Amino acid sequence: MLFPPALNRLVEAFRRLPGIGPKTALRLAFFVLSMDNEEVEEMSRALIEAKRRVKHCSRCRNLAEQELCAICRDSRRDSSLLCVVQEPRDIMVIEKTAQFKGRYFVLHGALSPVEGIGPEELKIPLLLELLKEGEVKEVIIATNPNVEGDATAYYIAGAAKHLGVKITRIGFGLPVGGDLEYADELTMSRALEGRREI
Amino acid sequence: MLFPPALNRLVEAFRRLPGIGPKTALRLAFFVLSMDNEEVEEMSRALIEAKRRVKHCSRCRNLAEQELCAICRDSRRDSSLLCVVQEPRDIMVIEKTAQFKGRYFVLHGALSPVEGIGPEELKIPLLLELLKEGEVKEVIIATNPNVEGDATAYYIAGAAKHLGVKITRIGFGLPVGGDLEYADELTMSRALEGRREI
Repeated sequence: MLFPPALNRLVEAFRRLPGIGPKTALRLAFFVLSMDNEEVEEMSRALIEAKRRVKHCSRCRNLAEQELCAICRDSRRDSSLLCVVQEPRDIMVIEKTAQFKGRYFVLHGALSPVEGIGPEELKIPLLLELLKEGEVKEVIIATNPNVEGDATAYYIAGAAKHLGVKITRIGFGLPVGGDLEYADELTMSRALEGRREI
Repeated sequence: MLFPPALNRLVEAFRRLPGIGPKTALRLAFFVLSMDNEEVEEMSRALIEAKRRVKHCSRCRNLAEQELCAICRDSRRDSSLLCVVQEPRDIMVIEKTAQFKGRYFVLHGALSPVEGIGPEELKIPLLLELLKEGEVKEVIIATNPNVEGDATAYYIAGAAKHLGVKITRIGFGLPVGGDLEYADELTMSRALEGRREI
């Protein structure tokens, strides 16, 4: 063993993180040794605290430290609009547009029979309960534009149809600022389908 | 605040690490939330323990949990050869060649008057003490091939000259497997200087 065991254990810990290979893990571990004691303690505590405190909002399953997340607690949000996303980080992408003033529902995944992820795992029954309360008038399904995301969108649309709620799917087409030349066939055919009068 | 404070603090903690930007920090923080409690606790503990336990070897300043590092404790190492490196990770690079059987001395930096790093900061007096013991017959200086590394090498050579120890510098030239076409002028001129009869 070239390095002290405690250093090797830290390298191994970093390697468990996604996208961190052996060289990066070693670089990070060396950096930790060069940090102040207080900084390292703070980082160590931040790990434990994030894991311990961050739960799912009981209403929308967004990340929350309290019973309800910041968005569900905000009375200025439009409770008639509900946007369904796969992951909490997707909320950030939509919030950045500053265009959506409704609330969210986070699935924490997409339907995937192969991986054993069905409607219960995604808490779709909880979503349907929410819709039955009657406040939501439109559900915008913003799952990913791929096979699993589409399947999940269609499943939710089917399950919610009889509840009398309008169900929409986010638009697909060419990314703004992109170049037609580089568009793949699928995106291009979705863009044609999604054409609008100007 | 879109995300719970405990998550934001973890993102901030990751951002302090080198090469981790805001997006990567967020990705890592989300990953931590998906880990098992035990795994997160292990990672948290690994940080504290590495920082707490890893010290510098009292003889060569390599990383060590005990008074002496693994290499200084190893009696099979040739104590007549001493390789001076800038950083502990440089030892790894040399050990990988399986060619060097001597011991090391780690400077933890290079001379840099601008940054206030002088011979004392690099513990060069400790290195000279070690040489005075008389066991070392040759010092191989393997500091980086740049201005600071060269200056440090010359400083050590000057300071150790009167001790009757042979002082060498690692060879410079073309990297093996490289292409002459892409060699920069400095490397090429060092390669010419370092030419050997075949």
